[in-house]
Amino acid sequence: MRTEKDELGEIQIPDNAFYGTQTARAMENFSLGYKRVSLKLIYAMVKVKKAAALCLVKLASQDEALKYRAIAQACDEVLQGKADDQFKIDALQGGAGTSTNMNVNEVLANLALEILGKPRGAYAIIHPLDHVNRLQSTNDVYPTSLRIAAIDLLRELSDNCARLQESLQKKETEYSGIKKLGRTELMDAVPITLGEEFGAYAQAIGRDRWRLYKVEERLRQVNLGGAAVGLAGKNEKLYHHGVLEQLREITGMGLAAAEYPMDLTQNCDVFVEVSGLLKSLGVNLTKIANDLRLMNSGPRGGLGEIRLAPMQKGSSIMPGKVNPVIPEMAIQVGIKVAANDFAITAAASRGEFELNAFSPLIADALLESLLLLCRTVRIFRTKCIETLEPVEGRCAALLENSCAFAASYVPRLGYDTVNRIIAENNGDPERVRQALDLL
Amino acid sequence: MRTEKDELGEIQIPDNAFYGTQTARAMENFSLGYKRVSLKLIYAMVKVKKAAALCLVKLASQDEALKYRAIAQACDEVLQGKADDQFKIDALQGGAGTSTNMNVNEVLANLALEILGKPRGAYAIIHPLDHVNRLQSTNDVYPTSLRIAAIDLLRELSDNCARLQESLQKKETEYSGIKKLGRTELMDAVPITLGEEFGAYAQAIGRDRWRLYKVEERLRQVNLGGAAVGLAGKNEKLYHHGVLEQLREITGMGLAAAEYPMDLTQNCDVFVEVSGLLKSLGVNLTKIANDLRLMNSGPRGGLGEIRLAPMQKGSSIMPGKVNPVIPEMAIQVGIKVAANDFAITAAASRGEFELNAFSPLIADALLESLLLLCRTVRIFRTKCIETLEPVEGRCAALLENSCAFAASYVPRLGYDTVNRIIAENNGDPERVRQALDLL
Amino acid sequence: MRTEKDELGEIQIPDNAFYGTQTARAMENFSLGYKRVSLKLIYAMVKVKKAAALCLVKLASQDEALKYRAIAQACDEVLQGKADDQFKIDALQGGAGTSTNMNVNEVLANLALEILGKPRGAYAIIHPLDHVNRLQSTNDVYPTSLRIAAIDLLRELSDNCARLQESLQKKETEYSGIKKLGRTELMDAVPITLGEEFGAYAQAIGRDRWRLYKVEERLRQVNLGGAAVGLAGKNEKLYHHGVLEQLREITGMGLAAAEYPMDLTQNCDVFVEVSGLLKSLGVNLTKIANDLRLMNSGPRGGLGEIRLAPMQKGSSIMPGKVNPVIPEMAIQVGIKVAANDFAITAAASRGEFELNAFSPLIADALLESLLLLCRTVRIFRTKCIETLEPVEGRCAALLENSCAFAASYVPRLGYDTVNRIIAENNGDPERVRQALDLL
Amino acid sequence: MRTEKDELGEIQIPDNAFYGTQTARAMENFSLGYKRVSLKLIYAMVKVKKAAALCLVKLASQDEALKYRAIAQACDEVLQGKADDQFKIDALQGGAGTSTNMNVNEVLANLALEILGKPRGAYAIIHPLDHVNRLQSTNDVYPTSLRIAAIDLLRELSDNCARLQESLQKKETEYSGIKKLGRTELMDAVPITLGEEFGAYAQAIGRDRWRLYKVEERLRQVNLGGAAVGLAGKNEKLYHHGVLEQLREITGMGLAAAEYPMDLTQNCDVFVEVSGLLKSLGVNLTKIANDLRLMNSGPRGGLGEIRLAPMQKGSSIMPGKVNPVIPEMAIQVGIKVAANDFAITAAASRGEFELNAFSPLIADALLESLLLLCRTVRIFRTKCIETLEPVEGRCAALLENSCAFAASYVPRLGYDTVNRIIAENNGDPERVRQALDLL
Repeated sequence: MRTEKDELGEIQIPDNAFYGTQTARAMENFSLGYKRVSLKLIYAMVKVKKAAALCLVKLASQDEALKYRAIAQACDEVLQGKADDQFKIDALQGGAGTSTNMNVNEVLANLALEILGKPRGAYAIIHPLDHVNRLQSTNDVYPTSLRIAAIDLLRELSDNCARLQESLQKKETEYSGIKKLGRTELMDAVPITLGEEFGAYAQAIGRDRWRLYKVEERLRQVNLGGAAVGLAGKNEKLYHHGVLEQLREITGMGLAAAEYPMDLTQNCDVFVEVSGLLKSLGVNLTKIANDLRLMNSGPRGGLGEIRLAPMQKGSSIMPGKVNPVIPEMAIQVGIKVAANDFAITAAASRGEFELNAFSPLIADALLESLLLLCRTVRIFRTKCIETLEPVEGRCAALLENSCAFAASYVPRLGYDTVNRIIAENNGDPERVRQALDLL
Repeated sequence: MRTEKDELGEIQIPDNAFYGTQTARAMENFSLGYKRVSLKLIYAMVKVKKAAALCLVKLASQDEALKYRAIAQACDEVLQGKADDQFKIDALQGGAGTSTNMNVNEVLANLALEILGKPRGAYAIIHPLDHVNRLQSTNDVYPTSLRIAAIDLLRELSDNCARLQESLQKKETEYSGIKKLGRTELMDAVPITLGEEFGAYAQAIGRDRWRLYKVEERLRQVNLGGAAVGLAGKNEKLYHHGVLEQLREITGMGLAAAEYPMDLTQNCDVFVEVSGLLKSLGVNLTKIANDLRLMNSGPRGGLGEIRLAPMQKGSSIMPGKVNPVIPEMAIQVGIKVAANDFAITAAASRGEFELNAFSPLIADALLESLLLLCRTVRIFRTKCIETLEPVEGRCAALLENSCAFAASYVPRLGYDTVNRIIAENNGDPERVRQALDLL
Repeated sequence: MRTEKDELGEIQIPDNAFYGTQTARAMENFSLGYKRVSLKLIYAMVKVKKAAALCLVKLASQDEALKYRAIAQACDEVLQGKADDQFKIDALQGGAGTSTNMNVNEVLANLALEILGKPRGAYAIIHPLDHVNRLQSTNDVYPTSLRIAAIDLLRELSDNCARLQESLQKKETEYSGIKKLGRTELMDAVPITLGEEFGAYAQAIGRDRWRLYKVEERLRQVNLGGAAVGLAGKNEKLYHHGVLEQLREITGMGLAAAEYPMDLTQNCDVFVEVSGLLKSLGVNLTKIANDLRLMNSGPRGGLGEIRLAPMQKGSSIMPGKVNPVIPEMAIQVGIKVAANDFAITAAASRGEFELNAFSPLIADALLESLLLLCRTVRIFRTKCIETLEPVEGRCAALLENSCAFAASYVPRLGYDTVNRIIAENNGDPERVRQALDLL
Repeated sequence: MRTEKDELGEIQIPDNAFYGTQTARAMENFSLGYKRVSLKLIYAMVKVKKAAALCLVKLASQDEALKYRAIAQACDEVLQGKADDQFKIDALQGGAGTSTNMNVNEVLANLALEILGKPRGAYAIIHPLDHVNRLQSTNDVYPTSLRIAAIDLLRELSDNCARLQESLQKKETEYSGIKKLGRTELMDAVPITLGEEFGAYAQAIGRDRWRLYKVEERLRQVNLGGAAVGLAGKNEKLYHHGVLEQLREITGMGLAAAEYPMDLTQNCDVFVEVSGLLKSLGVNLTKIANDLRLMNSGPRGGLGEIRLAPMQKGSSIMPGKVNPVIPEMAIQVGIKVAANDFAITAAASRGEFELNAFSPLIADALLESLLLLCRTVRIFRTKCIETLEPVEGRCAALLENSCAFAASYVPRLGYDTVNRIIAENNGDPERVRQALDLL
């Protein structure tokens, strides 16, 4: 154990820990046992720190430049996964992300000190705030990092949607000859093909893909350089421009300086917007997954129009039972994403004055939704869509046994007549058809 | 038009209106076109006003007693429906219910003046605040009224649930001999009876009935007499005890004085609790309604195990189509009640210091949920449960065509063996049974 | 009373009613006492019916053309408000909108019969389904109508946001010289100006305006002509193209035929998307409204940095009290819009196969949110933003009494030093400044 | 690696793993990277397995009894934490909990085999299903386990609420002499004491404690013995009674056999009810936490009526800044609990026929809410309530500077007169008081 201290007193830190007092305090203050801050967010923040350090290398004196170079190198080490276990603060922390920023600052400071051959805690040489956090504030670094992490996952998600769309379209073509019963409100309606159903699914997922692709532009505006409330950018122009250029290079993202950084420091509506789109995707996935469950129901006492590939035993007591576990997982993810949207909305609406104190909840929920959807879309494609099989005979049998054909007689015979014929023949398809043909 | 004025200036009031300046201002300030404050709430408040007036008749001088008697008489007129069109303020009003209280005060003052043969607006004789609102505040009158209105509807709802439970139990008995396929995760599981399913529904609704019955006790605690922040009760003991006794008599409810009126003036968790239970009922209704839709699906291309009574044409284009419109309505009400619960929770969590400014939204959402459920439970019983019919042949056919019987062989043969037999025989029920019987 | 009948039997219709059996049945089936279907939706649907009728005038025989001309004329009468009281079915109806379509069909049929001098109910001449609904289905007409109604309100809302943004920007300029305390997490932070705060609000509302403007393009795709499940368009090309051209003319909206009508018949994600954006606006309004409440708090025991214009008495018991009723209303609307988004999401995720049975709830919630926001944004602008006044002296006093200036010393002195000086001087601004200047 | 196989083929299992094929498949099928199933749930399920094993020891032949004894011993080992790393399946799994049950069955089977000196995978001796799962089904074991885990946490939570209530009541007494300004709608209202405010908080938390204590009785009804759909209990009476008696002993909970197990197998409304009460607690915590933030705001530019103990640095850029991080955490937990309630409601409303396929989401969200609240209530008490301090001078100053006293003149002078005096004196407290005293 080594001893560090801050204005609240001394605190013991494990010898091998790279973090310092503020991390230690936050770990105890927020000991919820919920889950740690997402590494996606930590890595994004480390990229911001690296951009700042590289920019300060150019702006600082030669002596100081050495330190910033070490910090940048420390960033690389974290990004290689060297310090993953140093970020243990709970995700539902108070303080608007300050603890996460402090955690990153402390770990980078001590890593950089190590690089320079100095002992941990020698903050007179490299200081977590005066150096690692120089010209920054949690309030510009944190939202910027969240945007970078979100863009990264959005791109992956958009790609995954594209691939799901392709798989659905392949099924559209493949099943274009399989006639089946169309249903509205679960009731027999009119004849369609199984391919057309998959085509409609593909359209919906295609729309999701487009939306997720387009919304990135809103996230690319960042308030980096705005410091505490979004105003500092005016004063430190050299840093302000330099840091963004570095960050664009590091992330490969077309990040742009916000025209009015104060706005993005305090307003979280963009995250609400993105989460709303994720929820739309969740709705579409749920709808498709539920259709597949219905079509797969049975195998003998349900619709049985398709057969989902078995993934595991379905019951601990009923032999032979196989459950549609992948669609069930997808539906739960859809619900979870909507629940996260609720949390994001509630948190965002509680912003006050120059900041939103509840951004850690926003970050946690948004990144969780993104990750869950990335995985789910991929699993849903490979373990459900691509492996399911149609049961053609059953599709045909259900169609032929219904009066789905009757609507096509309406233009010629009128609604009331067809209606009457169906009623008179008690819905028996054969007799109805004969009677209609006689008219 | 007559002219009235307040500290903001003069305002024109229609000659025949019983309301006054504060109502007129609120009608304009909150011109959302959403909907008016529920008459259920208005009437409950008028009962509170009547209780106060009757109590003040006893405490006041002879001259003044005359006025309070007129106010009590005015209350009766409103309760007879004479002034329903005088309460036009939007339900989503700001001001924590002050506008609704002002509206009631003004209408009662002018009605009482009319009873005394005085012109409208002669507030020097009977004043909306100094007389009608005497010893009261919006902050004690409004939550008390909401509780009275809620108890009233809760009782009706609990009764309606009891009747629905009875109808379900009747079906339980009636259908106890109809064997059918039990399903888990929409897949064929084990044999059950249709009666058993209705029995399970009855249990769930019975639990709702019990919960709704029990929660009334939490609503019976009222902060009436607590005035602005819940403290005044200490000073006006005679009034405080008298008014509650009157109110118990008028409402027939066992209302009790809150031990700590300041608590109930500012905390809205009890409404969150009640709404949570309404949501539970919504969940049960949704589950049952959805099961019925699935069992009714078809009539030929779905499960077709029951037949819901046709209520209206199901399609403008597909003759003969009949939709399960009552279950569909019930599911939408279930969603709406959950959405209202969301609104109540969000509003309640925004209480600040000695009051919750957003109680009008809480009142609107809570009473809407109660009304919707009262009606829905009744309609669902009469137009769906009591009129549906089983399709016994179909129930039997689906059961016989499945391997639902197989689980019963597990204790004797072991899971793996039964599993293998089913797989080897491709799930064909007849061959599976023969093979199992041979072991 | 006149007697009409359908397959369920005879039903009595009031003599003066233009509606028929299906409306009457639906009024009873869905007697929830919730609220009627929005006239916005009815009118949009009547525009669709008019487009269809005008198109059929051209395609029909001369005899029949006369009837369609009468139907088109009936549409104009409804759009002039002649039949508003004929649309009394509850908004939470089952049947995926069929009842609303039937209601419109029946009213238009009888109005058209009247135009031709025929008695009500003479459906052999003009039939609600065979004529008014010709080549249509609820399933293409209803979603198309909802889109038209939504676009109409979106445009109004976007305009209202633009005006609110302008008012906020005017305040930004006007108050650019008023220095005040910036706050993060409600704690004293750094100096800003009151103008800058209004500037940040303007940015957020500007972003809402842009989003609402852009999303219209997604709504402009309609499945009209797709009939029951989105397939019919293929068969009736003449009608299909004609009806859309008519509809574009009637609505003045650039409506386009969906490439894959089956998709839009069954998938409701676009409404989820729009609702999500409305929720983002609600979040921004809530944030701004809450800031104003905080700044207006007091007048003497709170922040007191601005003075909202008094709109009405604030209390029935505390004289002189004035409440921030307009921001309170806006916050409640923000919550309501989020609750509606919840309902829309839940309903949309319950789509099944070729249709979503719960679209009436989606329509009701979406149009309610749109209407509420249209009104709220306007009222918030005129009765709150444009009439509020700064309290400059108070802004200055709170700033001067704080240590908000201290952060500016960090770049020169380092974080730890400034921190120590503040602690040593117990946060007294004057002493802190002196001590820092000495270093 | 060892090879195991099931009907889907062979699968490689790490040598040291106690789990088997179904766990391995589930780990891959649900590879969401979300989080593992709560150990609280696993342990509760292991207690159920132990009860079943001990019961079967008595019912089985001597040979078999040996095996059940080994299984019971294996249960103890798991409960001592020996196999925590063997439960790695994602919490959002499909299959209604089957995978978790299979995971527990497999781990216990292999642990028991080890106890008997047999190799892993020797399922012919001890079989995960035929032995560990004997007479059980996921569908009775899983909901029973969830109830046990929930009761356990509910008791802890109720205790934590009791302690928080005590701390609040201590503050009530301690601060009973500190006069301060009461506020409604954030505006100056009437004089109160700081103690009274804490008293109101204590009441609210006391109500939560009572509700959480009472609801346990609903959870104590379990469907154990009901097997797949809640019917088996009828057949296996000896087991049925024995297992529950064992389980009562093991858990120390007064668990009772459900009268109608089929109901509890398919209906999840009880979890919705419990979650609704957790949400009520979340609402009360949020309200209190937010009040404390407002009272603590400043320290100089806000209300500054109390001082929360500093827990960590408040800013990376603003020296001396301290944030109310514990209340901020509590508010985020309140939001999260409401979001979980949303998820539970949505999942519960999607039950179908004899089961709810989405119970894993219900379990995850319910246990998460319980755990979060347990921790938060404790941290909120120790790190916020018990360590905060009043700023008496500031409380007095804000009260004296306001017109909060004016309402007390209304009974004598009438509302309009007091109103006028305040307006004439521009709200200046001293002049208002003088003027009122002169009347």
